Amino acid sequence: MAIQKPSIPSGTRDFGPAEMIKREYIFNTIKSVFMKYGYMPLETPTMENLSTLLGKYGEEGDKLLFKVLNSGDFISKLSGADIEEGNSVKSALKISEKGLRYDLTVPFARYVVQHQGEISFPFKRYQIQPVWRADRPQKGRYREFCQCDVDVVGSDSLLNELELIQIVSEVFKALNIEVVLKLNNRKILYGIAESIGYADKMTDITVAIDKLDKIGIEAVCAELNAKGISDEACEKLTPILTLSGSSRERLVSIRDIIACSETGLKGVEEVETILNYVEELSVDIDLELDLSLARGLNYYTGAIFEVKAKDYAIGSISGGGRYDDLTGIFGLKGVSGVGISFGADRIYDVLSGLDLFPSGVSTTSKVFFVNFEGKEALMALKLAAELRASGIATEVYPDGAKKMKKQMEYANRREIPFVVIIGDSELQEGEATVKNMVTGEQSKVKFSALVDYIK
Amino acid sequence: MAIQKPSIPSGTRDFGPAEMIKREYIFNTIKSVFMKYGYMPLETPTMENLSTLLGKYGEEGDKLLFKVLNSGDFISKLSGADIEEGNSVKSALKISEKGLRYDLTVPFARYVVQHQGEISFPFKRYQIQPVWRADRPQKGRYREFCQCDVDVVGSDSLLNELELIQIVSEVFKALNIEVVLKLNNRKILYGIAESIGYADKMTDITVAIDKLDKIGIEAVCAELNAKGISDEACEKLTPILTLSGSSRERLVSIRDIIACSETGLKGVEEVETILNYVEELSVDIDLELDLSLARGLNYYTGAIFEVKAKDYAIGSISGGGRYDDLTGIFGLKGVSGVGISFGADRIYDVLSGLDLFPSGVSTTSKVFFVNFEGKEALMALKLAAELRASGIATEVYPDGAKKMKKQMEYANRREIPFVVIIGDSELQEGEATVKNMVTGEQSKVKFSALVDYIK
Repeated sequence: MAIQKPSIPSGTRDFGPAEMIKREYIFNTIKSVFMKYGYMPLETPTMENLSTLLGKYGEEGDKLLFKVLNSGDFISKLSGADIEEGNSVKSALKISEKGLRYDLTVPFARYVVQHQGEISFPFKRYQIQPVWRADRPQKGRYREFCQCDVDVVGSDSLLNELELIQIVSEVFKALNIEVVLKLNNRKILYGIAESIGYADKMTDITVAIDKLDKIGIEAVCAELNAKGISDEACEKLTPILTLSGSSRERLVSIRDIIACSETGLKGVEEVETILNYVEELSVDIDLELDLSLARGLNYYTGAIFEVKAKDYAIGSISGGGRYDDLTGIFGLKGVSGVGISFGADRIYDVLSGLDLFPSGVSTTSKVFFVNFEGKEALMALKLAAELRASGIATEVYPDGAKKMKKQMEYANRREIPFVVIIGDSELQEGEATVKNMVTGEQSKVKFSALVDYIK
Repeated sequence: MAIQKPSIPSGTRDFGPAEMIKREYIFNTIKSVFMKYGYMPLETPTMENLSTLLGKYGEEGDKLLFKVLNSGDFISKLSGADIEEGNSVKSALKISEKGLRYDLTVPFARYVVQHQGEISFPFKRYQIQPVWRADRPQKGRYREFCQCDVDVVGSDSLLNELELIQIVSEVFKALNIEVVLKLNNRKILYGIAESIGYADKMTDITVAIDKLDKIGIEAVCAELNAKGISDEACEKLTPILTLSGSSRERLVSIRDIIACSETGLKGVEEVETILNYVEELSVDIDLELDLSLARGLNYYTGAIFEVKAKDYAIGSISGGGRYDDLTGIFGLKGVSGVGISFGADRIYDVLSGLDLFPSGVSTTSKVFFVNFEGKEALMALKLAAELRASGIATEVYPDGAKKMKKQMEYANRREIPFVVIIGDSELQEGEATVKNMVTGEQSKVKFSALVDYIK
């Protein structure tokens, strides 16, 4: 067989040991917070039936789904007419019935409905798994990336929103990242739409407002004009989106502006309750009411969140909200839920960019034994076994024939902090030579005292 | 949109919280042993280029690869002639250039070659990821399942084989599963083929011998006959495969039988060295030389292993071996390696079947607060925050309007061991009522003493 130059599909990544250890640090930190709040792990299959996925992410999303070719004889499902017609979207459905997971939310909804009989509601779950999107790859955008979701469904209590805010606070404190949590409420956005006279255009307004940060208020108004919203209405919108003052002050202002909208006032009340909880429990978080926060996904119906790093420009590193009918499409109505997703890749970039990975997160083994073959090697193996029995990650270089210099270079490249040398004289004296690779210091340590010395 | 009855593709699985917690117990146990020996984590993409995967698993394997349909306009790549010809295998390659990972070995080899400049050899890595095979699903055989591989490449020292045996011993001791590790060597199998006069039929002989356990010696001989191996040679084979005595005794017998084969004797020597190491280091493992152990995969060239549970009939729960040229196909010659794979699904079944999951592995949260709304709820939230700050997983029921009975039922179903009740009188007295859900006991505990009490 011809020799192949190895490569991987564009938009995908290998995670070597150094990256893996850092990624696991992030996941483990997040997971341990989730678990402290009683959220439980869930994993769903990589492939879902296309019928589960199609139509859930809009027309664009349908195109970005990776579809898996049916096994066996698929070609007989296509006809000459299909080829003439040249409609790949339509033809795909004849030869493919499975797709790769596009997010964790739809599979979660599918799971809840499918297993509703076994689940105790409120159901608190976290899910950390990769998802796939056939997007054009570019810097920071991958075709395979990991999502990290935490949701509670089957309860509309605002204590759940509070809990997610507590989780955000704890996760980023544990990761040592300074963040601001932006909070808004879709009911307030509806109230705004209603009070400018366009309750029916809530979606258009939301989509436009969502871009405020990126394109500015004038461009937002231009987009709204194009959607048939009057200049007058846009003029009303401008002061609302640029309200100043503290979150509490803005909340008072907006309450007056949308006083005519019952739904809007409900949203104001919800935000107020959440602010009260956060204050009463002294949750350590920089929380900010941001009336321009809209979040694109249409299924949100109540609170919406977005988290940004204060010291690193990278867009939001976490976000989510309350949805009232996620499982309806699968036949289970009236299950309200709220969730938040942590962006592992961006969090990784923030930690790298600000040099915030703890120093212990870069190596694995703590001790390395040089191998001199024969009885010396046997002693090294025995002492290594003792160290491991005490929980200390330890390696013995496998090839005794390799020169000591080579072996030391290996330990050095692997950044192993302690190198133990047991040569002829060490064996006779019953003492190992231990080299601290960080300080360069060398000590003689009795074999029987080695475990304690390393500890 | 019509309501869909939710389901998942056949041969795939959801892992709900109860299974996840047990699976994570297995993975964490295995991982912590790997890390103690200095193996480092690696993850490769779910999708590999089909050119990387095709031809690596035999013709049957090529068919069992899940292929991903190219995005965008794929239909124009097919012609009317393709449809007339009806060759799905050929057509698939025109509309698909990526496939799902079929095992962890080929992606590992691809990784090593692609990143050879960054890797310090010997490279010790573990990889725990799902793989996909379009096999017909049946009991215990899934289309998506997790592999758990540990390999070291770039060293032909037998200390690596020893290390893997130590790892097997530690993993199963930690999991509390009694196992026997069967050991053989492909060089001995070659020696046997040579000494019965069919060195050129090594592969056929290996494949047939591999079935000995399942079909018996007579059927093995019939299969060998069909492959053109004489009755006489088969007769010579029978006593070899049914040698009795200890591993050491069998080793002596086989050394005599294959004395004429240089390669065979090399294999005997390797086994002997490994047995010596295991003895000298008192590795706690029931190790057995099994000359009928062949392992199907052709890339093995030296030691081969297989692990079986003693008290549960389920086939091998771990297996692996030495390969001398895994990376050659990707252009890197002469990189010897040895590895072993742990079968997570089967290990799960053994632990379930023998009821060996530790009792702590079934619940998550330790404390549950009943919610009575108002000031009582606020106190519950404050105390919950204190418990979490001490690392204790704690939940507060979110819906204060729900009856206490309902809330208690929820805590019970979730198997949370401590329920804390803070009603009106508790709030006034500054003492919580704590119910131990296992014993049924109820105690009054001062708010300030709650953390210590639970600890």
